[in-house]
Amino acid sequence: MSESRIRIDRIQRDIEELAKFSCVEGIGCTRFTYTKEWCCARDYIMSEMKKSGLKVYEDPVGIIVGVLEGKDSSKPIVMTGSHFDTVKTGGRFDGMAGTVAALEVARVMKEEGFVPDRNIEFVALPEEEGARFGKGLFGSRAMCGKISDDELNIYKDEKGISFAQAMREYGLDPSKVGEAIREPGSIKAFIELHIEQGPILENEKINIGIVESVAGLRIFDVFVHGRSDHAGNTPLTMRADSFLASAKAVCAGTEKALEIGENTVLTCGYIDVKPGAFNIVTNETHFQIDCRSRSLENVDKVLDEVRKSLDASCTQNLGLSYEIKEKISMKEVPMNENIKKLMEREADNAGISTRRMLSGAAHDAMVMGSICDVAMIFVPSREGRSHVPEEWTDYEDIQKGTELLYRTVKSLASK
Amino acid sequence: MSESRIRIDRIQRDIEELAKFSCVEGIGCTRFTYTKEWCCARDYIMSEMKKSGLKVYEDPVGIIVGVLEGKDSSKPIVMTGSHFDTVKTGGRFDGMAGTVAALEVARVMKEEGFVPDRNIEFVALPEEEGARFGKGLFGSRAMCGKISDDELNIYKDEKGISFAQAMREYGLDPSKVGEAIREPGSIKAFIELHIEQGPILENEKINIGIVESVAGLRIFDVFVHGRSDHAGNTPLTMRADSFLASAKAVCAGTEKALEIGENTVLTCGYIDVKPGAFNIVTNETHFQIDCRSRSLENVDKVLDEVRKSLDASCTQNLGLSYEIKEKISMKEVPMNENIKKLMEREADNAGISTRRMLSGAAHDAMVMGSICDVAMIFVPSREGRSHVPEEWTDYEDIQKGTELLYRTVKSLASK
Repeated sequence: MSESRIRIDRIQRDIEELAKFSCVEGIGCTRFTYTKEWCCARDYIMSEMKKSGLKVYEDPVGIIVGVLEGKDSSKPIVMTGSHFDTVKTGGRFDGMAGTVAALEVARVMKEEGFVPDRNIEFVALPEEEGARFGKGLFGSRAMCGKISDDELNIYKDEKGISFAQAMREYGLDPSKVGEAIREPGSIKAFIELHIEQGPILENEKINIGIVESVAGLRIFDVFVHGRSDHAGNTPLTMRADSFLASAKAVCAGTEKALEIGENTVLTCGYIDVKPGAFNIVTNETHFQIDCRSRSLENVDKVLDEVRKSLDASCTQNLGLSYEIKEKISMKEVPMNENIKKLMEREADNAGISTRRMLSGAAHDAMVMGSICDVAMIFVPSREGRSHVPEEWTDYEDIQKGTELLYRTVKSLASK
Repeated sequence: MSESRIRIDRIQRDIEELAKFSCVEGIGCTRFTYTKEWCCARDYIMSEMKKSGLKVYEDPVGIIVGVLEGKDSSKPIVMTGSHFDTVKTGGRFDGMAGTVAALEVARVMKEEGFVPDRNIEFVALPEEEGARFGKGLFGSRAMCGKISDDELNIYKDEKGISFAQAMREYGLDPSKVGEAIREPGSIKAFIELHIEQGPILENEKINIGIVESVAGLRIFDVFVHGRSDHAGNTPLTMRADSFLASAKAVCAGTEKALEIGENTVLTCGYIDVKPGAFNIVTNETHFQIDCRSRSLENVDKVLDEVRKSLDASCTQNLGLSYEIKEKISMKEVPMNENIKKLMEREADNAGISTRRMLSGAAHDAMVMGSICDVAMIFVPSREGRSHVPEEWTDYEDIQKGTELLYRTVKSLASK
């Protein structure tokens, strides 16, 4: 990378300071929205924004906003940032990398006396992970008017505290969630830097990922009903073995995903068999399938294969049946092509290597895509690990990503 | 079947009386060794044996023995019976069918004034299922001198009561287990009637199964170690997915078992994945494989296939590894060919249809095979169900099986 105003020491300090409030060596970071740990992080972020000279406020759902005023504040703004909540016992970079990058971009812009053409808003968002209340992407959904009326009363944390109650205890008024909505047209672009959470950049020794799109995804619960028989005395051809049918379906779906390519992945991360004894054929199997791809069309092809396999087992086995229940379905969200090209040019200028890539994970930028142009910068994750205490991104890599974020935001806000 | 002295009403009464002590409608039968319920059943069996005129005693491990004295009590005896403990919430026929059949054979022999050439011993055995202490086939192993020194102290029930302590509380002296041993040569033959616990006889509309041999069996714990990655951002080709490797291995093993035939079966009835979240690739999978066949050689071929599949996954997936730990291994035990032929002739004479079949399940007769000739009679199980409250065998079928048992024992004890 060519010489950069982005200071690695400040990035490292921010990450380390923020980790102090919620991370325990070997246990990981736990910073749930509206908790004591979250307040400490909020105070740090607000204080750093103020030090940089931004106008800082907290919006009606707890989004921290730092405004760098431009020449014409009536123009649609450019927004950058990420979330600052974590999963339970997660890492120190997920969300924080993008939050800290935004802080550093603001500092550098103020230091060099840059006055943008339009306002730039640096944001830190709550409850992206959904780790406290079970429903994530909250900050971006609040800005896009996607919080349903009953959501705040329905979703509760482990202790039974509802989202609404937690807001009140924190000092926010849940009836004012609607005031967080940003009008369509009021935001020109939302740019988010985030850790990759996958191994591709590290494996290919590439500095930065420019996200092509956020994957389409479907998550299903599958229930296979069979019959519990004696493992010794029931011939294979007379069984209704719910686990075997499930295992075949997962294998068939995975084969199909590999065949399709286009970043199509199938994961079965949860499976439960009953009665669960080594010498009894399983009568009930419940498993979950998480399938993602460049397009939802590919996802559906994989799920068709899963169904075909289950149907074949049901034809063979007297008494086998199944149901599939959809848990989540999200269409792919493309990132803005012009911004992707701008990023590629700026990366070239700065001597930063990039590749385009799919984001398999959902991000706030995906939600923001419903009201403005969006783009994402991925920084490498060591061994692809994320949501674990070992989660790591080298500070040099965050610096490079921040340099690209700085150049991109500056360019977008300059006209 | 031709006319029979075996009385269906007495068989039904025995089954129903014994069920009274331990069976709850819809919940099933639970009669654990040395418990109150077991004592009630023991008293009933001993009382019925005494009423028939047998000499009745309880041996040092709690085996109930009823002796019909023959002309020469120095000759090796003929023994028949089965176990009278049950699994947790099991059925009323498993073990009981053979116990009750023995009671009825004794009654008929006494009624007709039959005096055998050698003693006949009618037995009811404890702890075949291993449901209370976790290690079954106890009665037969005690007779064959296969109880290890520390076993009675190691194995404990759910409440933490050791086998030895339970014996003492029941009134037996665990230090005298060795006195239950029957000398090799002291038993001519052991004949056991048992429910099939599989669907073959019912499906083929055949009265009785003559057991060819008890299957060879191996049970393994398999531990697959992978890496937990993000379900969205980790390409299929860069994963160490422990569940996928396990599912493939189970499918491959099952395919091989089908290809081999010879009653080869593979069951995966237990599987546990970690961390167990829908959107995280599984890092740890523990599953159990129960594999049985006519010969242990076939079992090994299936397990080779399981290993091959796991090896292939390990080659493909960086960081995947596995261990296989043997839990149980038992060589197949052939039943005595002369007795099988005798049974076939006697069945023909009585107008009872038979087929030879493998027993996939272990039975006391299998253990007894180490000290005497053994044979088994299977009676049909409705829908193959066993170890469940719905377990059922028609009384007419038990009557037919008992007729064949009667004829076989009579023949063997007559010379």
